[in-house]
Amino acid sequence: MSDAIEALLNPRSVAIIGASPDANKLNGRPQHFMQRDGYTGAIYPVNPKYTVISGLTCYPDIASLPEPPDLAVVVVAAARAIRAVADLGDRGTKVAVLFSSGFGEMGESGRAREAKLMETAITHGVRLCGPNNLGVINSFINMPATFSQYADLPPEAGPVAFASQSGAFGTGIAALARSRGLGIGYFVNTGNQADITLMEALDYTLEDDRIRVASAYLEGLRDGDQLVALADKSVRMGKPLIAVKVGRKAAGARAAASHTGSMAGEDAVFDGVARQRGVVRARNEAHMLDLVSAFVHSDVPEGNGVAIVTQSGGAGVLMADRAEELGLMVPELGGTTKKKLLNVIPDFGATGNPVDITGQFLAEPKIMTESVRVVLADPKVHLGIIWLQLMHGYANLLVDVFKEIMAHATKPFLVCWLEAPEQALTALREAGICVIDGTERAVDAAAGLVAFGEARRRITAVPAPVFRKTAPVSDHVGPVPSVEAWHRLKASGLPLVDCALTADAGAAVAAAEGIGFPVAVKIESPDILHKMDIGGVALGLGDAESVRVAAEAIIQNAEIRAPEARIDGLLVQAMAPARTEMVMGLRHDSAFGPVLMVGLGGIFVEVLKDVVFAQAPLSWDDAELMLDQLAGKAVLDGVRGQPAVDKRALIDTLCALSEFAVENPDVVELDLNPVFAGPDGTLAVDWLMMSTNGRK
Amino acid sequence: MSDAIEALLNPRSVAIIGASPDANKLNGRPQHFMQRDGYTGAIYPVNPKYTVISGLTCYPDIASLPEPPDLAVVVVAAARAIRAVADLGDRGTKVAVLFSSGFGEMGESGRAREAKLMETAITHGVRLCGPNNLGVINSFINMPATFSQYADLPPEAGPVAFASQSGAFGTGIAALARSRGLGIGYFVNTGNQADITLMEALDYTLEDDRIRVASAYLEGLRDGDQLVALADKSVRMGKPLIAVKVGRKAAGARAAASHTGSMAGEDAVFDGVARQRGVVRARNEAHMLDLVSAFVHSDVPEGNGVAIVTQSGGAGVLMADRAEELGLMVPELGGTTKKKLLNVIPDFGATGNPVDITGQFLAEPKIMTESVRVVLADPKVHLGIIWLQLMHGYANLLVDVFKEIMAHATKPFLVCWLEAPEQALTALREAGICVIDGTERAVDAAAGLVAFGEARRRITAVPAPVFRKTAPVSDHVGPVPSVEAWHRLKASGLPLVDCALTADAGAAVAAAEGIGFPVAVKIESPDILHKMDIGGVALGLGDAESVRVAAEAIIQNAEIRAPEARIDGLLVQAMAPARTEMVMGLRHDSAFGPVLMVGLGGIFVEVLKDVVFAQAPLSWDDAELMLDQLAGKAVLDGVRGQPAVDKRALIDTLCALSEFAVENPDVVELDLNPVFAGPDGTLAVDWLMMSTNGRK
Repeated sequence: MSDAIEALLNPRSVAIIGASPDANKLNGRPQHFMQRDGYTGAIYPVNPKYTVISGLTCYPDIASLPEPPDLAVVVVAAARAIRAVADLGDRGTKVAVLFSSGFGEMGESGRAREAKLMETAITHGVRLCGPNNLGVINSFINMPATFSQYADLPPEAGPVAFASQSGAFGTGIAALARSRGLGIGYFVNTGNQADITLMEALDYTLEDDRIRVASAYLEGLRDGDQLVALADKSVRMGKPLIAVKVGRKAAGARAAASHTGSMAGEDAVFDGVARQRGVVRARNEAHMLDLVSAFVHSDVPEGNGVAIVTQSGGAGVLMADRAEELGLMVPELGGTTKKKLLNVIPDFGATGNPVDITGQFLAEPKIMTESVRVVLADPKVHLGIIWLQLMHGYANLLVDVFKEIMAHATKPFLVCWLEAPEQALTALREAGICVIDGTERAVDAAAGLVAFGEARRRITAVPAPVFRKTAPVSDHVGPVPSVEAWHRLKASGLPLVDCALTADAGAAVAAAEGIGFPVAVKIESPDILHKMDIGGVALGLGDAESVRVAAEAIIQNAEIRAPEARIDGLLVQAMAPARTEMVMGLRHDSAFGPVLMVGLGGIFVEVLKDVVFAQAPLSWDDAELMLDQLAGKAVLDGVRGQPAVDKRALIDTLCALSEFAVENPDVVELDLNPVFAGPDGTLAVDWLMMSTNGRK
Repeated sequence: MSDAIEALLNPRSVAIIGASPDANKLNGRPQHFMQRDGYTGAIYPVNPKYTVISGLTCYPDIASLPEPPDLAVVVVAAARAIRAVADLGDRGTKVAVLFSSGFGEMGESGRAREAKLMETAITHGVRLCGPNNLGVINSFINMPATFSQYADLPPEAGPVAFASQSGAFGTGIAALARSRGLGIGYFVNTGNQADITLMEALDYTLEDDRIRVASAYLEGLRDGDQLVALADKSVRMGKPLIAVKVGRKAAGARAAASHTGSMAGEDAVFDGVARQRGVVRARNEAHMLDLVSAFVHSDVPEGNGVAIVTQSGGAGVLMADRAEELGLMVPELGGTTKKKLLNVIPDFGATGNPVDITGQFLAEPKIMTESVRVVLADPKVHLGIIWLQLMHGYANLLVDVFKEIMAHATKPFLVCWLEAPEQALTALREAGICVIDGTERAVDAAAGLVAFGEARRRITAVPAPVFRKTAPVSDHVGPVPSVEAWHRLKASGLPLVDCALTADAGAAVAAAEGIGFPVAVKIESPDILHKMDIGGVALGLGDAESVRVAAEAIIQNAEIRAPEARIDGLLVQAMAPARTEMVMGLRHDSAFGPVLMVGLGGIFVEVLKDVVFAQAPLSWDDAELMLDQLAGKAVLDGVRGQPAVDKRALIDTLCALSEFAVENPDVVELDLNPVFAGPDGTLAVDWLMMSTNGRK
């Protein structure tokens, strides 16, 4: 771990460059907060206007400081901030937090100033958090080096690390966490994130034994490897990374809009890779905090079977609806379980799942404790959700009930309690019991626990992924000739139809006789990517004469409709029998490097954008997960008279594609479209490969 | 309006049959609550064990009461409750609330007892609310005739009517409403709903000028006409009906599972009809209360353009993501608007939509008031959402800011305020300003306002729908012969391919020559519904000889593979050129009577269940709304080389189907599959009609 991040988040001394005695002002707040909370490190205010601030010596400049501070908080205006960074570096300070705005967020001139700032920081050996941020907090050492409103009340330490690109939203989220009793051990706002990223900060916090959950609010991502490495660490340590990323719908800005990519946009790549790597993605701030709360208080379940225990049939149905929607099982309980429940719950209750224990448990608490014990013992159940509402007259009784359940529970459970009495909430949190106050939200949180458990089992079964830099950016991207591409793909084990490049109609006939009829004939030219559009494709040619006629027509079409094009010849391909149509692809994502795509073909991909991305390399389980995420996956099981597809072959093909991606970093884009998937295997029928070594 | 509902919800006197002096007991709570809150009507406790309860004369029996009470609350055990209902009827009481359990919720014997109860009630002229419920509340007259925990604190009157089938969940929802400052004027729990329904109760409350919003929690629905009539009234009065209905995913239990119905299940019918009739459907309790809050405080916008004003870019993106997902527009602001914003907001803000006004408005509140004024004036904007967080030091300032915005706002706006100070929330609610404390939830609420506005414009443009009872249930449902069905469909204006019924191969050839080649030939038999399966269909027959050969083969296939079937002959049909494949259908829903279905054909319907339902009769706009709800609707605009479909023709066809449904109540099921939709119109190629007059 870098010394600079250690100095940022665990400093023995903090200088405030531009300090002020006014605790209401941005530049006065960090010192005020640190003194108020009893930070025991040295605090060095720096400002030539003062000699003392709040009882501490104030230094006229950085040079006068008695020692190089571990961390400097720079609260002066942009122009002076750059000077301050240089001085800090010269003094030996390794890291600075820059509140100063007027950088990248301010258009062209701001971006130039930010470049200057970074150049200065690198030259003088200072790492930067910010600029344009509102600081960092380590609550364990009572250090709110921030002007965030969140620190208006002293932050309480706890098992949550939270890093946010946004200051205002991050502040709001931290405050919401506080009112749920979730202690934030580390709070980091990276602002413009010119240097230190959320990922570096969170990576550091995961090493702290007191941290159980890392959470992040992201707006964009430059370095996907950092996220993936952090996610891998989080999964292997069993400390989830929960992330909100906005921009789910905005069209990503991508320089080279390939067909594969433009169909689904950047967010689909993030979403696919996050799922693959075990990041738990949250939709919004409340969802994120529900997940944080669940992971802080609850263990990760060993499967996706949920038992729902209520005293309202309706709430049970609402939860079962949501569980089905999220792919959780609400299993029929076993005969033994039901028999035991019958002995416990009143006649007018229900022993199905959801189980309705009725309000009678207030008179006989054993109804609740026993029911939960019994359902959690069912082998098909991996997690319980207990629903109730109000009961303000029974707060203490219910706290005791839940504590008793907790004491004997062999599997995790969540409590969903609408309008719970405040005293009960506090007591349950202290007892380490997760309480969520929304009926669907409790199920959403359960789904997050289940997803992380599944990701752990999938990911820890294989070695950590090997990362490498993305392929070199090159202006010299061009198509790879079809036969060369065929050989390269075959070498990685991809199943392709046979093909041959021929010079003229006669040679095409000879090739077709070698391959076997029927065949397809296509024009081959680096200048004609959309062969169909110029009449450059003929399909289903059943005999020599058809091939000859078609080949001549194709050559003529090309001469007329693409007179400038360089013609390499005619490609003769075996015709594959039609099967379930799919698409696969590879492209280089600016954040994640080589990413793979799979989708159902035709209308699924064109209208519904039903494609799933993941990062290479793929494990077998990763590839299976990709198929499982397809909205139209039922097609693979056979519909409309089509037989079921051989999924193992399909997964093999995705794994071969992953291997190809790893071994061929020059290939920046590959479309396999269509790929036929059938009961007898998978076969790619058309391919377009773009390489930095391709023909221009 | 029925006298009984008036007596239930606005009684001048209430008797409690089985009253108790113990305010902690179920049977003691109603009297306790009513006395505590100062109900000014007469309260008559009835119980032979007491002469006085809490200062009121207690009567030994119903016969001894000094007058027939308007409302009786029956809190005795099930067996005695039936007797009490008889006595009440004899005494002249028109309505009784039955807390008593032990009826329909208790299996076979309970159902028998409930039937007995209803028989008694009808015989003695008493309408029932319940049994197995927890009562009703009219807060305007301080009458909590309930044992619900919600009444542990005195209910506050307000503009919301809330009716719930569930007691426990309903109690929780009411308590949640209270903590949001939403006053519930009427609270009704219908329990087993043996007689009086949620809809009847809500219908009454809509007539009360003090009620602005009706809300409902539903578990099932027997009488769809009541819901539709209530919805129509709600839309025409401009008082929304907001409903949570559970069972979104559970497979509906339907006696005659037709193909059309079983594909999507009961909930899809409810969902389609609710949308068609202007019901605002909520997913869960929090969503419902967000919507209630928005409708209580905000006007309905005149379009779907949303302006988002924040001081966090990230929160803005999150809201824009959600808006796009929900079909709201976040329009690019006009040039004039942007110019005006540039004069108002700081340089580091953003004048796009979302607009980022930065935190600077705390120093200069005019930044906020002016920005909101300017964006709301933009003609593309119909509704504003203002996002902020915390600001506990500025609560009063911000309340003044929002009040000033409210005073001058020409269009509705919502405030999304995370972790707002309690005093500000209270002040804003009192000022009639809607505040929601979740970022996505604010957008969800905005979408509800927009949807109701759109429904109002659509629905009030046409006369109220005419309802009629659903078709008689009949055991004698059978298929209608194809040619007869063809004539009946044609009479309603449905576009169908030409056809003729012929006796043998020779006649089939002659018919084909009349229709024109190519043709299809199909076996016609009331006993063979799946003709394809027995080799009973031949398509694309291009000449007389093909027709003759195919016809003979079909007859032979039928003889071999369906030897018992009655054969009517051979149906000869014109072949339609292939177009975009769709399905349409009609069936009789147990709650809503004749409902219509439309979907995209093939994989869309089979894998994605992408079908939409609505109730007959349809307006033109209703039919358009149906198409607009299809997930794959982009297909209609042309994909994969297919031209765009003539949507007007498609809507005409749906309207013709609606007319057919209205005019042919004997037809309980109709499948048009496939229906070809193209640029040149719509054409149904196959039809299967089941009628109560059909052949058995």
